[in-house]
Amino acid sequence: MKSPSDGMFPFDRLDRRRAGHRRRVNGALEQWLPDPREAPQRLHKAMRYAVLGGGKRVRATLVYAAAEAAGAGPEGVDTPACAVELIHAYSLVHDDLPAMDDDDFRRGRPSCHRAFDEATALLAGDALQTLAFEVLCSDSSPATSAGRRCRMLEVLSRASGSRGMAGGQAIDLASVGKPLTLDELEQMHRRKTGALIQAAVQLGALCAGADDATMGRLDAYGCCVGLAFQIQDDVLDIESDAVTTDGGSDVDFTPRKPTYPSIVGLAESREKVTALHECALDCLTGMGESADTLRLLSEYIVTRRY
Amino acid sequence: MKSPSDGMFPFDRLDRRRAGHRRRVNGALEQWLPDPREAPQRLHKAMRYAVLGGGKRVRATLVYAAAEAAGAGPEGVDTPACAVELIHAYSLVHDDLPAMDDDDFRRGRPSCHRAFDEATALLAGDALQTLAFEVLCSDSSPATSAGRRCRMLEVLSRASGSRGMAGGQAIDLASVGKPLTLDELEQMHRRKTGALIQAAVQLGALCAGADDATMGRLDAYGCCVGLAFQIQDDVLDIESDAVTTDGGSDVDFTPRKPTYPSIVGLAESREKVTALHECALDCLTGMGESADTLRLLSEYIVTRRY
Repeated sequence: MKSPSDGMFPFDRLDRRRAGHRRRVNGALEQWLPDPREAPQRLHKAMRYAVLGGGKRVRATLVYAAAEAAGAGPEGVDTPACAVELIHAYSLVHDDLPAMDDDDFRRGRPSCHRAFDEATALLAGDALQTLAFEVLCSDSSPATSAGRRCRMLEVLSRASGSRGMAGGQAIDLASVGKPLTLDELEQMHRRKTGALIQAAVQLGALCAGADDATMGRLDAYGCCVGLAFQIQDDVLDIESDAVTTDGGSDVDFTPRKPTYPSIVGLAESREKVTALHECALDCLTGMGESADTLRLLSEYIVTRRY
Repeated sequence: MKSPSDGMFPFDRLDRRRAGHRRRVNGALEQWLPDPREAPQRLHKAMRYAVLGGGKRVRATLVYAAAEAAGAGPEGVDTPACAVELIHAYSLVHDDLPAMDDDDFRRGRPSCHRAFDEATALLAGDALQTLAFEVLCSDSSPATSAGRRCRMLEVLSRASGSRGMAGGQAIDLASVGKPLTLDELEQMHRRKTGALIQAAVQLGALCAGADDATMGRLDAYGCCVGLAFQIQDDVLDIESDAVTTDGGSDVDFTPRKPTYPSIVGLAESREKVTALHECALDCLTGMGESADTLRLLSEYIVTRRY
């Protein structure tokens, strides 16, 4: 996939594209988020803090890249890209709360409830979820028909609710200290992380008006990439623990919650990630250069070190 | 408004209609809520517990009654009625959490986080909000065009977010122990309770395809009734405290948060409620018998004792 025309290595090209997508979605998010000078200021500030404080914007990039694969430029894609990032941001704010994972830090700074307070973080998460839907249904670009907007809202709401992300989080909570089968773990991953990643790809494709065949391929791609993302997260968690403990690779890990490596081991987990990446590429066979960003993104997701 | 044909007193007629609306919306909610036998069972059970455990369904009735005033029967109105009740239910679950109002009881039984646990209640609230939007965008009844569904989604999301209900809740939190002007208090009430009540009326009118003039009247009605509802709540809180303390009516009240009576006194609060009711009726002038349920609902809201 090295481009002979610009002479850049594929990952440099991906970096440049991802930087462009990040700029676009950050600019759009900045516009949609409420004014921090308007009342209730504390809530508005917390919402902005949770959304604008960094983040890789992998999900937004997947929206743009899927639209590109289906033949559309980035114009008109900002709205679903924003919506997906808002859902992701809300889920992180609530996951970090003391009643859930009780995390004091997020993206290298205090988590939202530490920077503000629990009640404000709870409300900020609630309002960010609402904003995701508001953004998506208020998009008045002539390119997006009301029918298409409704379809996109359906995709986003199904991916976020009890049968998607929130359901996955509930299964995760229930699994603390309990053994899970590999199948149960995969179900949890597919919902908790996979559903929103898959939705990001679907939203990009829908936004571009992809035909049914393209839609099907991209959906299958999103499914592989979504699961690969979470398994790679599990792998990275263990590898970083190994580095911080004794630097060995055969460290004995006893995670609080079941993970892919805790069930099948580190080696098989890495193989699974590679297999899912190959499967993701297979889904894009015959789609030409317009799908190159998606190909590179899959590779980035399974080779990333953080 | 006494009907000569059925010989019933107006309030009996309202009771009968409200019972019918409650049955309709409860039946529809039952269908939309996730199966408690499916995983994650605890989350699904908590969602059902929070929604199906009673409640006056005032907001749903307002949706049906506004649709009726704009000339539509209850068919096709179940979806927005469900959506509004789901948003209301989610807000109660989160409001009751320890980080917010820390209420152990709701509708005469343990609040959701007491019946389950904090994490489950948090996720159940999150998933109920998502479900509200899923219900509204998935409605495939041929009577509701995609354009109309998008408009309804816009109304619901604006009423629920940082500029509506969640924003009102944030202002409420920030006001604990601080003096508010009457104007600030009204702004808080209009957002915290008023916005969703107004949205309920708008959704019913939109669902019925009301013309702009009718839409404007119903919107103004919703605005009056929404504020009246909250002031009456404040009045009832004080009256019930008076009964439980010494039975007197001149009891000295020192609420934790500013309320209408704490700023202008009980008598002026009652006058305000009556004035808002009259204003609500004025908005419906010339609308004929189809608006009778809305008229009775306004009267019920300002005369209710609980």
